[in-house]
Amino acid sequence: MWILLGGSGYVGQALQRALERAGVPYRSVSRSDVDYTQQTVLAEFLRSVRPDRLINAAGFTGRPNVDACEVHRTECLAGNAVLPGTIRAVCEDLKIPWGHVSSGCIFTGRHPEGRGFTEQDPPNFCFRRNNCSFYSGCKALGEELLQGAEQCWIWRLRIPFTHIDGPRNYISKLLRYERLLDAENSLSQLDEFADSCVACVRRECDFGIWNLTNPGSVTTRQVVDMMRACGLADREFRFFESEDEFLRVAARAPRSNCVLDSSRAVRAGLPLSPVEQALERAMKNWIPA
Amino acid sequence: MWILLGGSGYVGQALQRALERAGVPYRSVSRSDVDYTQQTVLAEFLRSVRPDRLINAAGFTGRPNVDACEVHRTECLAGNAVLPGTIRAVCEDLKIPWGHVSSGCIFTGRHPEGRGFTEQDPPNFCFRRNNCSFYSGCKALGEELLQGAEQCWIWRLRIPFTHIDGPRNYISKLLRYERLLDAENSLSQLDEFADSCVACVRRECDFGIWNLTNPGSVTTRQVVDMMRACGLADREFRFFESEDEFLRVAARAPRSNCVLDSSRAVRAGLPLSPVEQALERAMKNWIPA
Repeated sequence: MWILLGGSGYVGQALQRALERAGVPYRSVSRSDVDYTQQTVLAEFLRSVRPDRLINAAGFTGRPNVDACEVHRTECLAGNAVLPGTIRAVCEDLKIPWGHVSSGCIFTGRHPEGRGFTEQDPPNFCFRRNNCSFYSGCKALGEELLQGAEQCWIWRLRIPFTHIDGPRNYISKLLRYERLLDAENSLSQLDEFADSCVACVRRECDFGIWNLTNPGSVTTRQVVDMMRACGLADREFRFFESEDEFLRVAARAPRSNCVLDSSRAVRAGLPLSPVEQALERAMKNWIPA
Repeated sequence: MWILLGGSGYVGQALQRALERAGVPYRSVSRSDVDYTQQTVLAEFLRSVRPDRLINAAGFTGRPNVDACEVHRTECLAGNAVLPGTIRAVCEDLKIPWGHVSSGCIFTGRHPEGRGFTEQDPPNFCFRRNNCSFYSGCKALGEELLQGAEQCWIWRLRIPFTHIDGPRNYISKLLRYERLLDAENSLSQLDEFADSCVACVRRECDFGIWNLTNPGSVTTRQVVDMMRACGLADREFRFFESEDEFLRVAARAPRSNCVLDSSRAVRAGLPLSPVEQALERAMKNWIPA
């Protein structure tokens, strides 16, 4: 039996669907049942339940977007940096292999050599570079706290989307925002991400960091063009002239726009389809809210 | 009535003595009585007690020294960065003026202009400069979480010493270390620091950051010479040749050695005597363990 923390969130719900698809017996634990942010509470719970595996999909994300983390800094730091450290301590003590949902947002741009960032590259959008949003800083600190962790998978998600309209879905956001920022990004089809997490555990892939983005990258303009080609949108989209204008007019925190290299995951056979295919499929099967 | 969090620690005990000297009614709360790291627990407690003021002397410091924080990173981050943010949220909600024990260790060296660092200077030994110990990084993040806090004093302590021998006392450390690193530092005579905190609250000094170090600075060699002159030590002291050698041979984390400008506190009449005087007094009244 596996334990899922944070199962009620956007990523957590996708993980529940993936666990069900895979036929894995699991128990989704909410913080109101078991306050897993407290090390002693989590340890006592896991000692009594003795799960085979644990997945942490809990974390603090801003609503409606990452700007909210600039205000809710304490919760952001507690949920994204301290919590993974707490889970690590307990899981190492009880020898429970576990996976942590991290984020690709700890990178910006492309590697100076022009390629996407691999699992070996150190974050370049983080407190230590002093160029980041508070959310990205906390996520990077969270990964720091997991450096050298035993029996721990770190799964990097980046800009989730699915075919179901919703406030956390990247496609929905593009549909609703008045103006867009054109930038190149890697993306994660959320169900493929979740299937990859579950497959990573079941196939006993090596521990450590895994970039779980769909291979390739797209610009905002490309995605918007696809949306119009698929008939998902027929309006013209307006763009900010530059990231400077975007930051001045619409945003509080700098945004991570980055390309990740997910070839490690692809080589391991994790189910991540090329990003254009995954986007097209989501748009063709689109279910409006 | 005042509430004191972390009253059992080295700094907390000094604050208890200072509160008693000042005749301030207070209640020292330990985490086993009231788990003040949990926002709801702290809020409920303070709502029932309705203290006039609160002092936070709780935090995570490494034992025997700051190197331990490189290992206990989760506790360090929780205790030194998240906790002040949690207390801030509750105290602002309940409109309780409060003080936080911060640290001067978020600086290194002197200001480029040759002077000590004032309360206006941004930390230069912190995650954002990527040059610090994990402890200093967490302390600086803790101050970040208090930026813009209402009714909050931030008191910076730096290398505490008293006339009573003990494992946390700077003079005791110099007596016991086999080899020393020569560096220039500001120091805090711990009882003067604690008296200054209490006076800051009672005199309703302006909220914000206060450097509470004894005016001036000393080098390790100067302190050692004073110890020999006072008869506290008669042996020769050996020094590392450089900070590089010190880091290579004896330390895990880089050390903050810095000069703080405490003239704001001096102008406000807080009881901080010149550092040489304070050191000499401690050595003359020395009580061995």
